[in-house]
Parts: sequence; C-alpha cells; structure tokens
Amino acid sequence: MSFSPLIGQLIDALCCLPGVGPKSAQRMAFHLLQRDHAGATRLATSLLESIERIGHCSQCRTLSEQSICALCASHKRDRSLLCVVESQVDLQAVLQAADYQGMFFVLMGHLSPLDGIGPADIGLDKLAARLDEGEIREVILATNPTAEGEATAHYIAEIVESRPGIRATRIAHGVPVGGELEFVNSSTLSRAFNARSEV
Amino acid sequence: MSFSPLIGQLIDALCCLPGVGPKSAQRMAFHLLQRDHAGATRLATSLLESIERIGHCSQCRTLSEQSICALCASHKRDRSLLCVVESQVDLQAVLQAADYQGMFFVLMGHLSPLDGIGPADIGLDKLAARLDEGEIREVILATNPTAEGEATAHYIAEIVESRPGIRATRIAHGVPVGGELEFVNSSTLSRAFNARSEV
Repeated sequence: MSFSPLIGQLIDALCCLPGVGPKSAQRMAFHLLQRDHAGATRLATSLLESIERIGHCSQCRTLSEQSICALCASHKRDRSLLCVVESQVDLQAVLQAADYQGMFFVLMGHLSPLDGIGPADIGLDKLAARLDEGEIREVILATNPTAEGEATAHYIAEIVESRPGIRATRIAHGVPVGGELEFVNSSTLSRAFNARSEV
Repeated sequence: MSFSPLIGQLIDALCCLPGVGPKSAQRMAFHLLQRDHAGATRLATSLLESIERIGHCSQCRTLSEQSICALCASHKRDRSLLCVVESQVDLQAVLQAADYQGMFFVLMGHLSPLDGIGPADIGLDKLAARLDEGEIREVILATNPTAEGEATAHYIAEIVESRPGIRATRIAHGVPVGGELEFVNSSTLSRAFNARSEV
C-alpha cells in the first residue's frame, strides 16, 4: 500500500532538494500538509519567483536578481583585488570568515574536461576581459583544495601571469586551526611542513 | 554582507521544512538556483497542487485527494478491525511493518488540554459515530507510547467500552526487537517484565 498519487508526487518532488531522501521527504510532505499550509504556499511562491528573477551578476557571475550584484555595485570595496571562488557558498564562506574587502569572481564550477566543462563554461573568457580592464592588481585564487580546484587555479594563474602588472596568489594550505595533527591527512601535513614559517 | 533580498527570502521559506536550518536551506537554495531549475519548478507546482487538492478522507481522516481514501474504499480489508494512530507517518509505519489487514483511523494529533487540543480536535466525535455504525468489533489503540499517547488511548478506550460488543486493545509494549537490555529505559523494562509470557 503506497500513498495517494498526489502525495507520492509531492514526496518525489521534495527529493530534488540536496540531502533529502525519501524518508525525510515523506516527513516534510506530511508536515506541510498537516500543519503548515501557509509555509508551503510561501515556499512555492518564493521558488517560482526566484527561478524567474534570479540570474547571474554580469560582472562576477554571483546569483543575483540585479544585473549587477550588491558586491560589485559597492563603492566601499577594494577594486584592485579579485578573489576567484568556485561557488556561491564559497563566496559566502569568505565573506563570513575573512577580513577580505576586495571584489569576487564566481566560477560556478571548476574545470573538468571529462564532464565537458571547459574554460568558457566557468566564465574564464569573462574573467580575462575583466583583467584587461586594468583595474585589478592581484587575483586571489580561492578554489577548493581538490584536484579539480587546483587544476582550475593553475589554469587561471597562467591567464593572470600572461598579463603584466597583475599578481596571482593562492590561499594558504596547511593544518586547519583547531584540528589535531593525528587526523590531518598526509598531503595536508606535507604541505604544512613545506610552507612552514619563522615563529 | 548578506544575500540579495530574493535569495534571502527563498532561504527563509525553505526553513519552514522540518529538520532544515539556515545552513541547509542556504545549500538547498543555491543548489536549486545553480543546478536544478526544473526540480524547483516541479516542487513549486506540486506544493501548490497538493495544498489545493489534498484534504482529509471523510472516513478515516487520512490525508488524501479523494473524499474517501484508497484504504477506506478497498474491499479487501477487514472492516471489523479499526486501528487508531496519531498521524499519517504512524499509519505508513503500520502498513509497512505489520501484517494488519483492517481499517484505520488517523487522529492527526493527540489529546493535549494544555495546548487546547480536545476530543473534537482529534476527531473523536467522528470516531464515536463510526463505532455506532455497528461494523467494528475491535479497536486497536496504536497511539504513541508517550504520556499524551497513553492518555489519548485511555480516553478512546472508555468511548469504546461504553459500546457493548466492541473490544478495545492496545499494542504491546516491551523491549524492542534487536535492542539491548542495557540501553532500554527502566519503564519499558518494567512493562516488559509485567507483560511477560510463557515460552
């Protein structure tokens, strides 16, 4: 015995959310239907409106409903610094944690030739054009410390270095603050030793 | 620096889902906006359609888009047995686990005088009317083994016992199968001892 077709369909639809399996989707569906009609309506309306109106910022590719996002439009930020991140969540993480006051560029992915994701798909043509405008002095590569992230950082570093007067830098790798050496993987530890500094 | 207003609104709306906090809501919002427009549209449509069309079965109060749900309409089930559960998820659990072939009644809650939830709010007038129809011979009380669930079961048992010819039974309490005695709480263990049976 299964659910009524419409409930089954709602449960399937909820499974498209990341981290939500059939069991949580079932709980969510029953919760919304039994107790939160208002919340469900608000969610549906917000989803439809967001999908229709939110696009990418024309300068940094951040998700935004404006053609130029608030970060790019701000006059308080340092326009000579450009931080390149892989995704929207990475941008938020940098904003929340670091004392960084420069601009951003969101790749919305990383180079992955096997999946057919090349330079144009992550906006590197747009990034090159931005560098040619002449405002930027340093590009901080903050892609993820994964194989794909490193490869993407190297590729971008070459684009940057072919333009005189612009530095390419990479965020530091090493032992996470608050972590224990015992649980740090060996490649992290070896990079932490190689990049050691005077106390 | 926070999100654009529309993204913030979508994240807030996603927080109405049970078990979803701001951090997962953010992940969900970015996932839908960056990678799954189709899924988001399907979810929104399904939510709106479900809220408009899904109501309660007029006989057992299950969530259903029909006025009489598939379980109540079925001719293959034993109409002399009625299992009373607190919620839709409990009904699903019984259907999936137990070899039960009777009918159901879903309270959609439990008695809770402090929260202003009385007998009428959990449909006990409808339950009494159903008992008076004369088909039912046994009411199986499968409310949760919590204080409120027990109180609700007692209350319903009185309604049942005031009608001659109908038995009220309660599902057994005891040590969960596959559990370890060490981790079973003392009231469960004492009920398991009191309800012991011959091997």
